[in-house]
Amino acid sequence: MTTKWVFGFDEVELAESQVDGDWDLVRALLGGKGANLGEMTRLGVPVPPGFTVTTAACNAYLAGTEGFPDGMWSQVLQALENVEHATDKRFGDPTKPLLVSVRSGAMFSMPGMMDTVLNVGLNDDVVKGMIALTDDPHFVYDSYRRLVQMFGAVVLGVRDEPFEDVMAAYRHRNGVATDAELSADDLRMIVDEFKDIVTRYSHTAFPTDPHTQLEMAIEAVFKSWNGKRARDYRDAAHIAHDLGTGVNVVTMVFGNMGEDCATGVAMSRNATTGEDNLEGDYLMNAQGEDVVAGTRATKPVADLAVEMPGMYREFEAIARKLETHYRDMQDMEFTIERGKLWILQTRNGKRTAQAAVRIAVQLADEGLISRKEAVLRVSPDQVDFFLHPQFSSDTKLSVGEPIASGLNVSPGAAVGVVAFDPDLAERWATQESKPVILVRPETKPDDVHGMLAAQGICTSSGGRTSHAALVARQFGKPAVVGAASLMIDVSARVMTVDGVQIKEGDWISIDGTTGEIFHGALETVIPDIEDEWLMRLLSWADEFRRLGVWANADYPHDAERARANGAEGIGLCRTEHMFFEPERLPIVRRMITTKSLGERRDAVNALLPFQRADFAGIFRAMDGLPVIIRLIDPPLHEFLPSFEDLTKDLSDLKIQLISSRNLPEIDSILGRVTEEQAMLERVEALRESNPMLGLRGVRLGILIPELTRMQVRAVFEAACEVAREGVDVLPEIMIPLTSHVNELSRQRGVLETEARAVMEEQDLEIPYKFGTMIEIPRAAITADELAEYAEFLSFGTNDLTQTTFGVSRDDAESGFLLQYLSEGILPSNPFATLDIGGVGRLMGLGVAGARATNPDIEIGICGEHGGDPDSIAFFDELKLSYVSCSPFRIPVARLAAAQAALNAETKN
Amino acid sequence: MTTKWVFGFDEVELAESQVDGDWDLVRALLGGKGANLGEMTRLGVPVPPGFTVTTAACNAYLAGTEGFPDGMWSQVLQALENVEHATDKRFGDPTKPLLVSVRSGAMFSMPGMMDTVLNVGLNDDVVKGMIALTDDPHFVYDSYRRLVQMFGAVVLGVRDEPFEDVMAAYRHRNGVATDAELSADDLRMIVDEFKDIVTRYSHTAFPTDPHTQLEMAIEAVFKSWNGKRARDYRDAAHIAHDLGTGVNVVTMVFGNMGEDCATGVAMSRNATTGEDNLEGDYLMNAQGEDVVAGTRATKPVADLAVEMPGMYREFEAIARKLETHYRDMQDMEFTIERGKLWILQTRNGKRTAQAAVRIAVQLADEGLISRKEAVLRVSPDQVDFFLHPQFSSDTKLSVGEPIASGLNVSPGAAVGVVAFDPDLAERWATQESKPVILVRPETKPDDVHGMLAAQGICTSSGGRTSHAALVARQFGKPAVVGAASLMIDVSARVMTVDGVQIKEGDWISIDGTTGEIFHGALETVIPDIEDEWLMRLLSWADEFRRLGVWANADYPHDAERARANGAEGIGLCRTEHMFFEPERLPIVRRMITTKSLGERRDAVNALLPFQRADFAGIFRAMDGLPVIIRLIDPPLHEFLPSFEDLTKDLSDLKIQLISSRNLPEIDSILGRVTEEQAMLERVEALRESNPMLGLRGVRLGILIPELTRMQVRAVFEAACEVAREGVDVLPEIMIPLTSHVNELSRQRGVLETEARAVMEEQDLEIPYKFGTMIEIPRAAITADELAEYAEFLSFGTNDLTQTTFGVSRDDAESGFLLQYLSEGILPSNPFATLDIGGVGRLMGLGVAGARATNPDIEIGICGEHGGDPDSIAFFDELKLSYVSCSPFRIPVARLAAAQAALNAETKN
Repeated sequence: MTTKWVFGFDEVELAESQVDGDWDLVRALLGGKGANLGEMTRLGVPVPPGFTVTTAACNAYLAGTEGFPDGMWSQVLQALENVEHATDKRFGDPTKPLLVSVRSGAMFSMPGMMDTVLNVGLNDDVVKGMIALTDDPHFVYDSYRRLVQMFGAVVLGVRDEPFEDVMAAYRHRNGVATDAELSADDLRMIVDEFKDIVTRYSHTAFPTDPHTQLEMAIEAVFKSWNGKRARDYRDAAHIAHDLGTGVNVVTMVFGNMGEDCATGVAMSRNATTGEDNLEGDYLMNAQGEDVVAGTRATKPVADLAVEMPGMYREFEAIARKLETHYRDMQDMEFTIERGKLWILQTRNGKRTAQAAVRIAVQLADEGLISRKEAVLRVSPDQVDFFLHPQFSSDTKLSVGEPIASGLNVSPGAAVGVVAFDPDLAERWATQESKPVILVRPETKPDDVHGMLAAQGICTSSGGRTSHAALVARQFGKPAVVGAASLMIDVSARVMTVDGVQIKEGDWISIDGTTGEIFHGALETVIPDIEDEWLMRLLSWADEFRRLGVWANADYPHDAERARANGAEGIGLCRTEHMFFEPERLPIVRRMITTKSLGERRDAVNALLPFQRADFAGIFRAMDGLPVIIRLIDPPLHEFLPSFEDLTKDLSDLKIQLISSRNLPEIDSILGRVTEEQAMLERVEALRESNPMLGLRGVRLGILIPELTRMQVRAVFEAACEVAREGVDVLPEIMIPLTSHVNELSRQRGVLETEARAVMEEQDLEIPYKFGTMIEIPRAAITADELAEYAEFLSFGTNDLTQTTFGVSRDDAESGFLLQYLSEGILPSNPFATLDIGGVGRLMGLGVAGARATNPDIEIGICGEHGGDPDSIAFFDELKLSYVSCSPFRIPVARLAAAQAALNAETKN
Repeated sequence: MTTKWVFGFDEVELAESQVDGDWDLVRALLGGKGANLGEMTRLGVPVPPGFTVTTAACNAYLAGTEGFPDGMWSQVLQALENVEHATDKRFGDPTKPLLVSVRSGAMFSMPGMMDTVLNVGLNDDVVKGMIALTDDPHFVYDSYRRLVQMFGAVVLGVRDEPFEDVMAAYRHRNGVATDAELSADDLRMIVDEFKDIVTRYSHTAFPTDPHTQLEMAIEAVFKSWNGKRARDYRDAAHIAHDLGTGVNVVTMVFGNMGEDCATGVAMSRNATTGEDNLEGDYLMNAQGEDVVAGTRATKPVADLAVEMPGMYREFEAIARKLETHYRDMQDMEFTIERGKLWILQTRNGKRTAQAAVRIAVQLADEGLISRKEAVLRVSPDQVDFFLHPQFSSDTKLSVGEPIASGLNVSPGAAVGVVAFDPDLAERWATQESKPVILVRPETKPDDVHGMLAAQGICTSSGGRTSHAALVARQFGKPAVVGAASLMIDVSARVMTVDGVQIKEGDWISIDGTTGEIFHGALETVIPDIEDEWLMRLLSWADEFRRLGVWANADYPHDAERARANGAEGIGLCRTEHMFFEPERLPIVRRMITTKSLGERRDAVNALLPFQRADFAGIFRAMDGLPVIIRLIDPPLHEFLPSFEDLTKDLSDLKIQLISSRNLPEIDSILGRVTEEQAMLERVEALRESNPMLGLRGVRLGILIPELTRMQVRAVFEAACEVAREGVDVLPEIMIPLTSHVNELSRQRGVLETEARAVMEEQDLEIPYKFGTMIEIPRAAITADELAEYAEFLSFGTNDLTQTTFGVSRDDAESGFLLQYLSEGILPSNPFATLDIGGVGRLMGLGVAGARATNPDIEIGICGEHGGDPDSIAFFDELKLSYVSCSPFRIPVARLAAAQAALNAETKN
């Protein structure tokens, strides 16, 4: 049996049966477009008749040197004959001419990368016949000149310029602006000139035989698979080079053959809002290109209901049918040729984040997809969109086109005045409170201070892993990079875009979500996190996820926001943040600097009411939900003035002293010197060469037990207070930085004694848990031992990543880590996405160890990775109890957790 | 069958058969002393007849309330009858009186903790009979008064003071200094007064019936097992409380019954030097206590050969027999009673480090023990002794007694002038180059600078885990702590010992090996590491060990010393140490501070010849042995002046500037300001908040590849150079601080290219290996991946401990770690002895992973733990290829490695 190289659009079932019904294999064989045209045909959607030459034929052709594989051409001729029957036209027959398009179509879409030839089948004879049939020489000659140009360019490799030059000359000669204004006669002469160009540049005459045209066009599409452009694209998109492309030969239909003709594109639902009605544009008596080119003002597709109500109803029904079939919103191309509607293409439509959410929810409501599928349809990034300022579509429309665009490397909208250097950006931002957009050819580590001060970042070069992109994402700054059309002249303090000059200090707006750059200050909006569709989607996600989603929150108002966003607990309340408040810091400093035990005790006691009030507020906000309170963690010197500042102050004071000739002034200066000197001594005593690895966490608790005892007292006094108000309070006390089980066992003893004492004083029993962070490799390795003294463990993946990698985040993220990322030594920033191969393995050991000791132990994670979708998938795999992340990331985490669970379900 | 509660010394075989010949169980049943007396009896050694009441009897007695267990007392009476037969004496019979001692004897020796009653069996009647028999009323009454006193104290709980008061009164009345000078009449009267004291204080009369004495004495010994003193001792020594004590009832023999009597103690070999001849002291006509008390001048045991040649020969034969039996040097007590030699006790003798080594080797030479046993007989600490300065025994003799003694917490001898405060110690040591001994009541973290500056440390309080002890051991400073008899008055700058005043600045000498403190400056010697016995012992150790022993050495002379001490390779050559040499540092600084790539390349090239020469020297020294060269590791700022110094200098310069009124001076100051400002900027740019986790190791190599390329070039140029000289050169290139396999794979590519280039230039092929350190937890976890790109791995356990624990050694070892150790939160300093439960587990994972990838991979360890015996045992368990340690620790490591292998052999 000879191989079947060619399938008519009506033979999709045959193709399907050849591959046992595996639709992926159908797409592999026919290409995405061919399979789709076949599928639509099977559905009874009016698709212009045609056929597909398989990817297998392409591969056989490319592998050999003998031209088309055996039998292919005869199968093409047979398929063409079938099309002739179906259309009642004949290829090359001037009396009822059949024209076809020849289009590539690989398994995966490679937009713009491969070639198409339209109007194949025209020659001088056919043209004459068509003019007779249509009485529209302008249309026919225009079609013909397009064929000659495309054929010349695509099949014979003639550059576009000579063709364009001819067109320009005719426009000039006739004093018109557009090609459409040229007369039929002009077009006829242009065809002749085009033929000459083809002959001259390719040393091959434009073939007059339609079959030769078809043969050469198919061959050209085959060859384009191995073109440099296509290969580069596949390399970048990780598409295999051995898939081959299919070739689709489709009957040409024309939307420009009169007033009973039209052409347009439409989405089955609103791609911006997600509303359930057709949305799109069309033109009467026009070709597809005209709609896209924007040379004529298009009409909204709703108008078609008035202009061609029958056509509109038919289209609407088809759209519904396709949506039902593909179970998603469709993006369709259609043409009405003399009152007959043809669908030329359908595919799942692109949409905004809001639309994605609404469409997914509504499709589920309509029963088209399950709720699980709805949850899987929306990406966490799309949910993230709701959490960043954005430009509204209206705002964008009002300012018109962006002046430039680049890579959308860090989402969100930012508006500010242009600053071309980081120092200026910093000065404007900090000293003049101006919003600034830092604009640079590219950024370097030296620029980071300016990047941090700016609202957004924009560069003219660099890619997704450039310094600017990494830093921007890191710090959540909107950024557009690699906007190559910006001509930045830093020394002249000006940039030029498309001839427009933008000076330092001028306003621009950048959209890091889309990569667009606008002149002027656009209005931003914060999308509605309480969007009803999002709320419903997330509530479904909540049903499917296994992981709890908790929040890191240090203040009552954080806790409230977290709860509003769906947090099921507080996974990390950092008690020391409370110490930095202006009214408290002096007490904290007194506590640290005094050498008198009594004074220290007094200072500690003075902090108690503050802490108690903070905790009470958080407990009230989290009524009925667990709150994990971490005892003091950072090194004490963080609460004191910096060594450098003190040294500088002292040096300044000494210089004042030398220059002063005034006794009272000298006395006053001396007083300050003494004071600062004393502080400096204490700061020096507390200085550490590596504070990250120094006296902090539980080590502090062991050395200054009165401090942690006070914190535990504050927790339990607050708990008793709110419990009396009727609040259901569930405190969990967390010891930071444990590395050895003995630290935990000792601290647990001390702190539980204090907790019991408070509960006895208050005559109230508060249920509570005691646990520790796992943020030191040794803690992960010995989690089996720690689990004996802990009801819960919480992975602090920020610190754990630092110690497991031996990397100080403070130093590395603006230093060698950037180089590691740009050189690909590390696949991603391990502080953003968990390093599964290293830190993850360690976590796995810790989880296994802890569960071996206590199968029911509560294990969570409270590092930044708790809000990162890729990391969340891993945490789900580890079967952690919950992830805890910033209140703003809660919705993202809820969705990501659900997707992780659903994907795991599919895998198993 | 009734239980056998009592075993005669001649029944040891019966006891042995009861427990199937398990000698440990015999000792458990009879106690160590009882088993030993039985064993000697079986060997035919003349032991005074007697019997043992078992530990089982003790336990049964203590468990019940009914007195002695059933049948015990009748067995005691029967055993006593057997002793009467053997001695032809009768208990309580004035005509041929039998006296016995009643002594405790538990399974493990508890010196001084338990009780003994001598001369049991005396009463007024028996005394009369004995006087008639001996014609020595002084001896008899003295024995009697001792019985009454001991019985009163031990059995009836009367305090010693009233007895001592009576003795003192008699001495005073007679105007004599010692009890021995009292007359027989006085002693008779004293006996009566003692009896009164017993009655008065215990409300019980001294029992006149010898059987009652015996019964009560046995009961008292049983009870003493549960005395507070004994319990405390067992807690401290980790001895179980349920073992019970045996009671030994032994016929009294007397060395003080005339000129044919003598008593003494002797070692079967010299305990100081290990020479093979009897060594000890004796007294004619004396009691054991007299020898120990030092009230009479003893004679060396060799003199006995002259005074009692027959006795001497018999003793010598017995000593040899016991040594042969116990297979070790014996420490024996003997008494000659009227020409009859009795051996009262034998045990393995204590000895000096030198003696331990020599005795072990000679016992093996004599075939008494195997070479394996010889290797196991000497502790690594004893080998360590050979590596520290010591006082010779002669020197010690010449100065007489130590003025005080304390705990020997850090070995070695130190001599210096007393300084009572750390600042003074530091000033004297650094500014006046005086050797100093820091003497403090106790030390605190604030004192560490003075401790480091001192030759040795001495405190009057504190124990083995006190701050002083920990820091001293840490830094290898000899130290004696807890010398309670030193009365230190820091404010008066003086200390008083036994009435002698020692002022600040006076010379003292301390022996950290023994805990002794001497007045004046003693001469120190460095023991002979080339001691022939040690060399032989180590050569045997080399046969038994599995682990290689390599050295950490940075310079040719280090490498030579290491090789002389037995190193089989260099496990770590730190290349950056070479950068700190005065002539090189300016070049290094230029390399770091320049912004010009060309200038940097020039500086790097200028360093090349230095490095090449260093490497060549090391290769020559290690001809035929592997040399692992680690590429540059520390952060660059370590090579620059400190930020603090620069800031201070600049501030000083500014003040000079203000006060200067002289133009050329101002210019000169301004020049220096500019220079220092530039350096400060560079230092600031390189500053890191946590340099330990910063830009160092392989990260430097990736950011400044020209530096590591230069180092590799230097290695291979040097290798080629020495290879041409005929040296067998085996370089191994080691990448530091790897945390991700990609770092290794990239660097390997770059560096192997350079290595190949050099070898091609030189037209020589040098065999080499490429590998990495494992000093970051992530590296250990992913060792399976690293092993794909490494022929060897080397655990850097210093850094690995820091990152695994999250502890900065710089900060912690003088800070919270000390508190952790003194509070027992950590069992030992993890930087000295490997933390097997944490770091060790991680190493285990790494080793397993690496071997899974490459079973033959070479894996070593080059942290300080490489010289620590406990850690070495663990490394042997991990089956590492080698340990690498400081050249001085090589002998210790060789022995420890052998012992680890032998112990493992025993276990399996």
